[in-house]
Amino acid sequence: MAHSGSLLWRNLRVYQIYGANTDVGKTIFTTALCNAASKLYSNDLTGYLKPVSTGPGDAADEQSQPHKTIPKDADLLSSIYSHLSDAAGSGTGNPGGWFFIETAGGVHSPGPSGTSQAELYRPLRCPVLLVGDAKLGGISTTISAFESLRLRGYDIEAVLLFEDEQFRNYDYLKSYFEKKHGVRVVSTPAPPLSESQGSQEDTERMARYYKEIVASGRVKSVLEHLDEQHKARVTRLESLSSQGYQRIWWPFTQQKLLSPAKITAIDSASGDFFQTLNTSSPEDLPEHQAKQAPASQKPLLQSSFDGSASWWTQGLGHANSSLTLAAAYAGGRYGHVMFAEAIHEPALALAETLLKGMRDGGNSRLSRVFYSDDGSTGVESALKMGLRAARTRYGWPVDTKLGIIGLEGAYHGDTIGAMDCADPSAYNEKVEWYEGKGVWFKPPSVMCRRGKWTVKIPAGFEGNGLALAGEMEAESLSDVFDFRAREARGEHRVYEAHVERVLKYHLDKGRKFGAIMMEPIILGAGGMVLVDPLFQRALVNVVRRSQHLFSPESVQQPRGETDWTGLPVIFDEVFTGLYRLGRFTASSFLGLDADVSIHAKLLTGGLVPLCATLASESIFQAFVSNDKTDALLHGHSYTAHPVGCQVALESLRQMQTMESSGSWAEFQNGVSGANDACWSIWSSPLVEWLSRHPSVAGVWALGSVMAIHLESPGGSGYTSTAAIALRDALRASNQGPAQNPWNVHSRVLGNVLYLMGGQKTEKDVVLQIERLLRQHLT
Amino acid sequence: MAHSGSLLWRNLRVYQIYGANTDVGKTIFTTALCNAASKLYSNDLTGYLKPVSTGPGDAADEQSQPHKTIPKDADLLSSIYSHLSDAAGSGTGNPGGWFFIETAGGVHSPGPSGTSQAELYRPLRCPVLLVGDAKLGGISTTISAFESLRLRGYDIEAVLLFEDEQFRNYDYLKSYFEKKHGVRVVSTPAPPLSESQGSQEDTERMARYYKEIVASGRVKSVLEHLDEQHKARVTRLESLSSQGYQRIWWPFTQQKLLSPAKITAIDSASGDFFQTLNTSSPEDLPEHQAKQAPASQKPLLQSSFDGSASWWTQGLGHANSSLTLAAAYAGGRYGHVMFAEAIHEPALALAETLLKGMRDGGNSRLSRVFYSDDGSTGVESALKMGLRAARTRYGWPVDTKLGIIGLEGAYHGDTIGAMDCADPSAYNEKVEWYEGKGVWFKPPSVMCRRGKWTVKIPAGFEGNGLALAGEMEAESLSDVFDFRAREARGEHRVYEAHVERVLKYHLDKGRKFGAIMMEPIILGAGGMVLVDPLFQRALVNVVRRSQHLFSPESVQQPRGETDWTGLPVIFDEVFTGLYRLGRFTASSFLGLDADVSIHAKLLTGGLVPLCATLASESIFQAFVSNDKTDALLHGHSYTAHPVGCQVALESLRQMQTMESSGSWAEFQNGVSGANDACWSIWSSPLVEWLSRHPSVAGVWALGSVMAIHLESPGGSGYTSTAAIALRDALRASNQGPAQNPWNVHSRVLGNVLYLMGGQKTEKDVVLQIERLLRQHLT
Repeated sequence: MAHSGSLLWRNLRVYQIYGANTDVGKTIFTTALCNAASKLYSNDLTGYLKPVSTGPGDAADEQSQPHKTIPKDADLLSSIYSHLSDAAGSGTGNPGGWFFIETAGGVHSPGPSGTSQAELYRPLRCPVLLVGDAKLGGISTTISAFESLRLRGYDIEAVLLFEDEQFRNYDYLKSYFEKKHGVRVVSTPAPPLSESQGSQEDTERMARYYKEIVASGRVKSVLEHLDEQHKARVTRLESLSSQGYQRIWWPFTQQKLLSPAKITAIDSASGDFFQTLNTSSPEDLPEHQAKQAPASQKPLLQSSFDGSASWWTQGLGHANSSLTLAAAYAGGRYGHVMFAEAIHEPALALAETLLKGMRDGGNSRLSRVFYSDDGSTGVESALKMGLRAARTRYGWPVDTKLGIIGLEGAYHGDTIGAMDCADPSAYNEKVEWYEGKGVWFKPPSVMCRRGKWTVKIPAGFEGNGLALAGEMEAESLSDVFDFRAREARGEHRVYEAHVERVLKYHLDKGRKFGAIMMEPIILGAGGMVLVDPLFQRALVNVVRRSQHLFSPESVQQPRGETDWTGLPVIFDEVFTGLYRLGRFTASSFLGLDADVSIHAKLLTGGLVPLCATLASESIFQAFVSNDKTDALLHGHSYTAHPVGCQVALESLRQMQTMESSGSWAEFQNGVSGANDACWSIWSSPLVEWLSRHPSVAGVWALGSVMAIHLESPGGSGYTSTAAIALRDALRASNQGPAQNPWNVHSRVLGNVLYLMGGQKTEKDVVLQIERLLRQHLT
Repeated sequence: MAHSGSLLWRNLRVYQIYGANTDVGKTIFTTALCNAASKLYSNDLTGYLKPVSTGPGDAADEQSQPHKTIPKDADLLSSIYSHLSDAAGSGTGNPGGWFFIETAGGVHSPGPSGTSQAELYRPLRCPVLLVGDAKLGGISTTISAFESLRLRGYDIEAVLLFEDEQFRNYDYLKSYFEKKHGVRVVSTPAPPLSESQGSQEDTERMARYYKEIVASGRVKSVLEHLDEQHKARVTRLESLSSQGYQRIWWPFTQQKLLSPAKITAIDSASGDFFQTLNTSSPEDLPEHQAKQAPASQKPLLQSSFDGSASWWTQGLGHANSSLTLAAAYAGGRYGHVMFAEAIHEPALALAETLLKGMRDGGNSRLSRVFYSDDGSTGVESALKMGLRAARTRYGWPVDTKLGIIGLEGAYHGDTIGAMDCADPSAYNEKVEWYEGKGVWFKPPSVMCRRGKWTVKIPAGFEGNGLALAGEMEAESLSDVFDFRAREARGEHRVYEAHVERVLKYHLDKGRKFGAIMMEPIILGAGGMVLVDPLFQRALVNVVRRSQHLFSPESVQQPRGETDWTGLPVIFDEVFTGLYRLGRFTASSFLGLDADVSIHAKLLTGGLVPLCATLASESIFQAFVSNDKTDALLHGHSYTAHPVGCQVALESLRQMQTMESSGSWAEFQNGVSGANDACWSIWSSPLVEWLSRHPSVAGVWALGSVMAIHLESPGGSGYTSTAAIALRDALRASNQGPAQNPWNVHSRVLGNVLYLMGGQKTEKDVVLQIERLLRQHLT
């Protein structure tokens, strides 16, 4: 349960001293800084910490000591955080304090557990003083150490190094860092050579040395610079929300209902946690914490579990250095590659990986990858594909008004074409060029209610003499997903009859349809509705066998098994795909192979936007002709940008490796009571408990998602505020380090509060959130 | 004129030996590899090169030697390339060869000119053998050196290091690199300590040592691994096009007209140059080259000037390490930040920079920044902004059919909303949901024809008793852009009268308009048309004073100077802005301040997609209400993604610094004969020469863009092929290292061939392209 925030207090200036190499003078600079701080800021506390000191000198810095008890990374961070919290608290009444945390060896020298220190300490994201290497070769090691720190998101406040008159690295590095990175470089004379280590003379010589360099003003200039930077950082951080409030136009946000106080200032993130500006005033805090932390000493940053998986994009954690390195590699190898009649390795490799992943997930139709920039543009390209394929096969004229078949509550993005695929709502009806083009089925939905898994059938489900209304119960979610058993029992018949009846009704009125587009399993932005998979199957199966309805005059037979029939089937897996629900493709829950499939969000693990629209060969062939103007008229400047493709490759590689190595076993087995068919990181006991809570209308959990539908007497939908209270309680759930050192940042959709982890979210974190839910749901 | 390609031959295996630090054993490993190669591959050539060797041992590796003549970076690369070309050629008949290029010091140790070696040698992008550091601290320096190489796009084939039994770095590093990066680590015993350097005994001891480690099989295993990797790389590179041909669905491409041979395989890029697979067979080559290079020894990679600025995205060069580091920093600090009711530093700082840049460029209206993922989505959000502002002010019902006012030949993107802003054409009319919504003015256009700058007036320009037809001539492009003088002469009156007449015609028929949307100055994808700036001014000025036409019943007065009037004015600066035409904002050429302004492409210098739509406060206020559903309904998961914002900040910072420090003076002064108003990297003499060429209908150059409109008897537009011959000639223009070591990759739009540099394109490169044009235009 140890999770520590980043180190930032208003009056305590904390720095981590990293070295470009071992034996570059970290201890000497740290000592000099401590000496100078004590002298020049004599009212302040000056503190020093070397968390991983492994014996006399630096001699064994790099290697962990197997004969000692090795602290876990998280415990080490926790103890540093708690040490610094005490320091920040102990100075009550003091104007401030300085604290220097010395690392061991170089930036990547392993900590006790073997983790590189640059990685290990990253959650603290302390401003860094990098001690450069004055020796031969030190220009290179200093710059590389700097780069390793930067690519982990560290701010390097200054580079400090000795003045070796032979190599004069400081001349080069001063110009390099100041010009290229705006980073201050301060050099001091090298310390005297030790003549006899530990001798009285040696001690005196070093004491004189420290006195001299402190007196020289160089160290003072560092402290002054740090003090300025610290103040500037705090001021800027505290003004982010108000400055943003004046300049930023937020997406989907009624800004009149916003105020600077409601805007979360995010300083950084790592793993599942944001570091947000702590805006609670002492009066807001629980008593025990208010006592501990008067305003001037309260931590300025707050760890906040990213409960929306950062708008559903996170899989492998924020600031995952493997993804960062993948991005950097592609940036360094290509920058940009214009993707007209050109090919590059990451674009091809990603196409291969996606096609194989879909094939392994059961879809043998897909053979082509079209890249775009985000889910919405991916949907637009999919739409163009589907409509063209249908129109050309059925010989409809170009000005035929074609609609799509979809689900009520669908969301496919905010560009006009994607919007037009969604049914009218209070929101999109206000958009001037929006014109819903299609027919949308209200689907049966699944939730656990009062301890029972229930399929809720909307009114009017009937056809072919069959009718269905109300609710059906199932033993488990897995039973709901067992479509083979349910079809064997004939449960799909009324669904299919209903679909046929509704389609005929519209077709009889002369409407024409060009494609079916659906989010498989979950309607995400439309309110986190878990759709009965049997209904999605029924819808697709009816469409696929109904060429006679869509184009009565057409006699064309399918050309092979992978050809589309009836209408092209487009699955928008932007949210539900790529392991969000526990599987590479959400369509595998349905046993259906889409003709067009859209993938984004988790594809790049949150780093950069990218979308891949996959299509079958029969869809692709609809655009193949001798006429240039028959080509798919879609593209973006950054189509298949190498950075995105490389990151996606790494993201998929890691998630696929996790799947094949059973990384989610502890969620899959036992705990949740789920079987292979559907498992979740959120436990079955919790889901059941929630479902019986009087405030809860229903709940479901699948993969890393849990959606809690709250009772909402005032109606559900976007205008509901039923979930706000729970969201706010979770956000105020930080109750001091002893109990829960972090709060939960979650998002609501109308009356639904959802929680979403990543693929690397740890069980103890999930369990703690479960505890918080039980505590705060009222 | 020295530009070298990357080093890749089928039978010559070339490696660059980098060290994690100085004195880690680069020379020893290189020697061992050479020894082993000579022995094990005795039919092969084995070569060795140490380009920057600065005296005995490594002692002065890091420092340039001021007393010697310092070679320029480009010359150094050239000489290495030429040396290796000779080596590849000299082995005629041999099965192959090995070549090892040893670097000096560590990866970032400065080369002769002071440039870090990792940067200096990057254009060669040789596969790397990284010699790790076995000493204390060496785990850290080895990993950091690896990361510095990766973020410059190097492939590290193996890490080699000595087995120091005290520190055992090889244990840690072997597991680290193999698990985390799939990179082979090979260790060998450390060499014997020298007892008396240079002595006979010492020499013998080392000879024994080399013999032992070669015999041990370790070095052999390295060579075998390298040989495998080399073959795999070549095979993969040569199959990229055919594999891609089967799996990739290219944007805007009629794939039936494509074949693997027409697909450019891009191995990497740096600066203005792609490295593309050299597909020319000896028969295709000019005689002198065919003789020099039989098929087996021809270079597999070809330097190709990126003449489309990689689809108009490049400003600071491909693989610019400052942009890469900016991306890596944001990746490491945040990963993703969900941007609902949240703010982070790069998003705010970028908003501030953009708003200030526009203000400095003369636009005092813009106050808000809305982020999206690309130009097309930026256009969609701009459109929603403009239409809503007009509709709410004028009290039109939500179902009012609103059109936009635009220019014929406009292009704003490929999502349906953006497409609908463009006039119908052979292409977009085939898109099922496309429905052009607006009225589009055919604009007067500007070109240099037969030595004269000419404004061509389309037929039908008349109104209010005035009429204009045919052509107007000007002394210079700057005169055309001097709208103050032209307005003083009354030249705008007929434009304004024409605009008023056409608008009245449509309004009288009951049509309603909600915004005016234009690409300022240049219609890019619509055929590289330079629009007479006076006409764009006339159009906007008429619209802004014509509230009485658009909404006769409205009596509302503008609220302050930054309020929009008539209709909201949207400038799509995606292509023309951010220095593409030489200025921060293209609107400054027009002296007009947009109400909404869209920026992308150069914004992120080609690294990742990002778009910023800037709006005035009066536009923003149209969405402010107590009703949530009145909010701007637009957003993407990756809205304001930190990586993009950070890269954009760095990109803008660099370009703004270049502007303020006069980096483009040599293009601005004298050479082009242009003045402040409009200058280009393409010289006036060239433009004039081209304009007089019988194959050229007209030409213009502005900023980094030059568009050559070729005579096209078969009609212009997308179906023309007039420019293909010139494009193909430029692509075949590599005539051997002595004359022109690179070719030109350019793009055509119908009968237009355009060439586009970046903001860092050097004069000698431009001059060489000018020479090629003079040579190849027939």
